[in-house]
Amino acid sequence: MSRVEIVAIGRELVTGVVADTNSAWLAAQLTALGATVARIVVVDDDPAAIAHEIRAARALVITTGGLGPTLDDRTLAGIAAARGTRLVEHPAAVAFVARRYAELAAAGLVADGALTPPRRKMARLPEGAELVDNPVGTAPGVFVDGVVALPGVPEEMRAVFAAALPRIRACLGPETYVAERDVQSGSGDESVLATALEHVTDAFPDVHVKSFATTFAPDCDLRIRITARAGDRDAAEALVARAAARLEVELARVRSGKA
Amino acid sequence: MSRVEIVAIGRELVTGVVADTNSAWLAAQLTALGATVARIVVVDDDPAAIAHEIRAARALVITTGGLGPTLDDRTLAGIAAARGTRLVEHPAAVAFVARRYAELAAAGLVADGALTPPRRKMARLPEGAELVDNPVGTAPGVFVDGVVALPGVPEEMRAVFAAALPRIRACLGPETYVAERDVQSGSGDESVLATALEHVTDAFPDVHVKSFATTFAPDCDLRIRITARAGDRDAAEALVARAAARLEVELARVRSGKA
Repeated sequence: MSRVEIVAIGRELVTGVVADTNSAWLAAQLTALGATVARIVVVDDDPAAIAHEIRAARALVITTGGLGPTLDDRTLAGIAAARGTRLVEHPAAVAFVARRYAELAAAGLVADGALTPPRRKMARLPEGAELVDNPVGTAPGVFVDGVVALPGVPEEMRAVFAAALPRIRACLGPETYVAERDVQSGSGDESVLATALEHVTDAFPDVHVKSFATTFAPDCDLRIRITARAGDRDAAEALVARAAARLEVELARVRSGKA
Repeated sequence: MSRVEIVAIGRELVTGVVADTNSAWLAAQLTALGATVARIVVVDDDPAAIAHEIRAARALVITTGGLGPTLDDRTLAGIAAARGTRLVEHPAAVAFVARRYAELAAAGLVADGALTPPRRKMARLPEGAELVDNPVGTAPGVFVDGVVALPGVPEEMRAVFAAALPRIRACLGPETYVAERDVQSGSGDESVLATALEHVTDAFPDVHVKSFATTFAPDCDLRIRITARAGDRDAAEALVARAAARLEVELARVRSGKA
């Protein structure tokens, strides 16, 4: 089971102007690939803070945000600082940025396709980095020494993640399969369900059983999610099926008041 | 200017089942109070991971999630571990939980208001903790040694934050004022705006100027947010007004192609 950490970067995130929906999307994708997202960290556009989080990570790191042309886009400086390298103009990245602005100018979307200093800035990558294609925007993605840097604009982030997927899979090691099943508990009172969940967890230590209390509503029907990982899909599904069967027995006991 | 760190706790967050909207709400509230949210960290329901993040924080910490009755609600164990203390049954918390379930039973929302072990679990707080009222749910909020623990269910989180506000304000020290203003740039091309933003930032080093690129759309009208902090409201507003005036001059130059 491979660990990943997500570092989401942007003043708009730490000030609450924008909710960090990118990390939830990435976490769902990575979980489906069999990885464990050990943590998600959100920091300001500050190279020292970014470098600190990347240095502290004991896992593949995926960053989002801070790859654009403005001065406050400083993620690559943070990655370079964390790895003890410099930012250098990357010839393939220069060619990429030049091509993207030429395309936008030809389409009439920008006034001028010239490679101005702010545009050229996006092609300064940490030494030794590989370019990752960005089919949506103008800032290339970056892959370097256990760090994948994605743009912050959600549709660009998703497109560059897809382009980086072969490299990410290679970092994650052997694929594991995740099976999950939702069971309606018939109760809105977590304090009553606690004992049932505990019994299932004791009987299936490799299965994760969790009630999702997203509103406080003792009169609702709480959903319980059962999740299992295994080396192949059949084994994962079998584990979940057995845990779900046991949960139904425990829930019937709760409903009959014999829990 | 006071620093705060937010630690959001829950398997549903690190697996991307739920987006962490609580932290964005808290970050906006804290920023409006003049605090700086230094980082937001999302971790699993794991006391060791929770303790690690709380120990690493150099600021007031606000946690969300993990206060409920089920076994995977382990935030208070993480806080106790970080502070080198134990969880002990807190008499006022026992009285609070007993009262809330008695109220729910009287309203017919739970079958039985008895103080069962899962319910009593919510009253085991880190030694030395103070209770914070939860007018919505059944788990009390907790204030202890630089840590404020809020529930994870959004409406409970907001209500307990409001109840904890006097204590949070006291931790934040002297109030600072934040003024902000949004300016439409008249351009969708951040690479063209970069120079204008740089000139304003150079002229007003205490003012933060940022373009919000939330979609890649070179033909749109990007919004620029100007933010300033000061000891009183008038000073903050005056700073923002001066920076906005300068930004308009710079943007006019961009539009005339003389940037």
